[in-house]
Amino acid sequence: MANGARDGRPTMVSLARDLGVSRQTISNVLNNPDIVNERTRARVLAAIEETGYRPSAIGRALRTQRSMTIGLRLYPAIDGINGAIMDRFTHSLTESAQLHGYRLTLLSAADAPTEVKSLEALHHVSAIDAAVLTDTFLDDPRPAALGARGLPFVAFGRPWGDPDAPHAWVDVDGRAGTLAATTYLRERGHTRIGFLGVDATGVSADRREGWAAGMAGSGVAGRDLQVLLAHDFARDGAEAAAVLRDRGATALVCASDSLALGAVGVFRNESADIPVIGFDDTPVASAVGISSVAQPVEAAAEQIIGILLGLLAGGPPRRVLLEPTLVLRNLEQFAS
Amino acid sequence: MANGARDGRPTMVSLARDLGVSRQTISNVLNNPDIVNERTRARVLAAIEETGYRPSAIGRALRTQRSMTIGLRLYPAIDGINGAIMDRFTHSLTESAQLHGYRLTLLSAADAPTEVKSLEALHHVSAIDAAVLTDTFLDDPRPAALGARGLPFVAFGRPWGDPDAPHAWVDVDGRAGTLAATTYLRERGHTRIGFLGVDATGVSADRREGWAAGMAGSGVAGRDLQVLLAHDFARDGAEAAAVLRDRGATALVCASDSLALGAVGVFRNESADIPVIGFDDTPVASAVGISSVAQPVEAAAEQIIGILLGLLAGGPPRRVLLEPTLVLRNLEQFAS
Repeated sequence: MANGARDGRPTMVSLARDLGVSRQTISNVLNNPDIVNERTRARVLAAIEETGYRPSAIGRALRTQRSMTIGLRLYPAIDGINGAIMDRFTHSLTESAQLHGYRLTLLSAADAPTEVKSLEALHHVSAIDAAVLTDTFLDDPRPAALGARGLPFVAFGRPWGDPDAPHAWVDVDGRAGTLAATTYLRERGHTRIGFLGVDATGVSADRREGWAAGMAGSGVAGRDLQVLLAHDFARDGAEAAAVLRDRGATALVCASDSLALGAVGVFRNESADIPVIGFDDTPVASAVGISSVAQPVEAAAEQIIGILLGLLAGGPPRRVLLEPTLVLRNLEQFAS
Repeated sequence: MANGARDGRPTMVSLARDLGVSRQTISNVLNNPDIVNERTRARVLAAIEETGYRPSAIGRALRTQRSMTIGLRLYPAIDGINGAIMDRFTHSLTESAQLHGYRLTLLSAADAPTEVKSLEALHHVSAIDAAVLTDTFLDDPRPAALGARGLPFVAFGRPWGDPDAPHAWVDVDGRAGTLAATTYLRERGHTRIGFLGVDATGVSADRREGWAAGMAGSGVAGRDLQVLLAHDFARDGAEAAAVLRDRGATALVCASDSLALGAVGVFRNESADIPVIGFDDTPVASAVGISSVAQPVEAAAEQIIGILLGLLAGGPPRRVLLEPTLVLRNLEQFAS
């Protein structure tokens, strides 16, 4: 019954029965037509044409042990502003995968160990062939865990704290982005440029480094530079921005658009002429008119699928660091 | 080879070979243990325990013809502001499906016919059991097409223009949302309340009707009411808001947060005291402090999965209309 025609749709079993040939013959007609004699081949092809039979994905998966499916954990949108970038990423990943006959299957997980367990369970039963990890963090246990389990994967995000990790990843050079932002402000005469970070590790630290590099030669250094750095304020950009302004910052570079939005809110209400540059070029930054560093999310998704297909074909774990772009908005008023 | 142990993982075939029993025996031990003699059962169970064998999802799918997978088209984020709501929806749908052992598989498609074709192809090869449609529109061809193909689905969005369509759907009562927003403004003394819509059909028309209902008894009617209605301005909320203000609007209800954001931008720059209420309670509305009508997206996703499971179990196509909530922000300054 299980192998019979369901909903009137022909299966390989029903087709074989109707034609009085073996399933292997039908499979050969589709996959190795040269080894089937011409008359049988013509009969089977005619029946396939007539009945609308298509090889079942299940049957194909059973033969190839490939599900043509990639697992991806979808995170809840903790921060709706910066979450927009993952939305674009998921869409691009779907499109890139689809171009190569792959589909994305989504999973939700409460934490990294649960994510690993779920991916491993799906892989174990051949429901996914590979996985994409996102939101890598310092001492992230996932790459090693998946590697040990033999599940091919590419991480969107570097292995923070473990630059020599052997797995494949694609990331965007956040340091280069904040360096470009800081340099832009320096070139317009600013020396006391503040930095608003989320925390002191991983992505945020990388973006802070770009700011610090951009501040070299500004005359602001040591303790005086440290007071222009705020990274303990988490999501409250407004409070941190007010503190940095009181410490003499005349411009701000932020590790996220939500921080930048909070900062801009403070300055607009007070009519303080302090330029602010965010990160991620989110719809909010675009709508409110805040300059920001844009990640090439679509290119990252394409690279990830390309590397993943390479891994599935036995290729090496490639690593790619992409360049972000500085998107300027409403900064003319601050030009010196 | 295809059925043999891959990556060292035991399969039903390798297990049967190692134990010298048939695959059917192993299947029986798992599914009909009573018909297997005790000694064999104990031997097979011990081997399953020892080798870590788990029944393959592919094998299970072959037996049950169920992929435990639901297809969903992911749209590109045309409007990053209102797109945030679909991000929440996709996440909630993933979580709700997962609670019931189902997974979401994503597809991208250029248009509705391509979406139907892709879903049908996936269903035809048993790669999906069902589908969720989103973004329904006037004379949407997808419900009838999927219905004709026997693919179970639930639409997030009503069948606009065809209220008696026989398929299952879940929607949010947009009319009730804009009625609540308009009534709130009326109660604060406004009579000339303008409406900014996206277009004149479907979702936008439903939201316009709530505004029109709320305007009943305001003394503004006929041609005078018509001039307070703008729905040809697509995404340019700023321009439409300026026009409505010039026509004497003292408050605005908008069919989307991106329209509301454009309107607020105009009024803030001109210090015009015109309250604006948006729709969808997006992160932008929250960040910028705009009142908005919130859709119960998580509840909608849960309902959709519940109805879909019912359909797969042979149940009827249920229809559910959920109530939105008015979220008020920064409107104290406008209180009369």
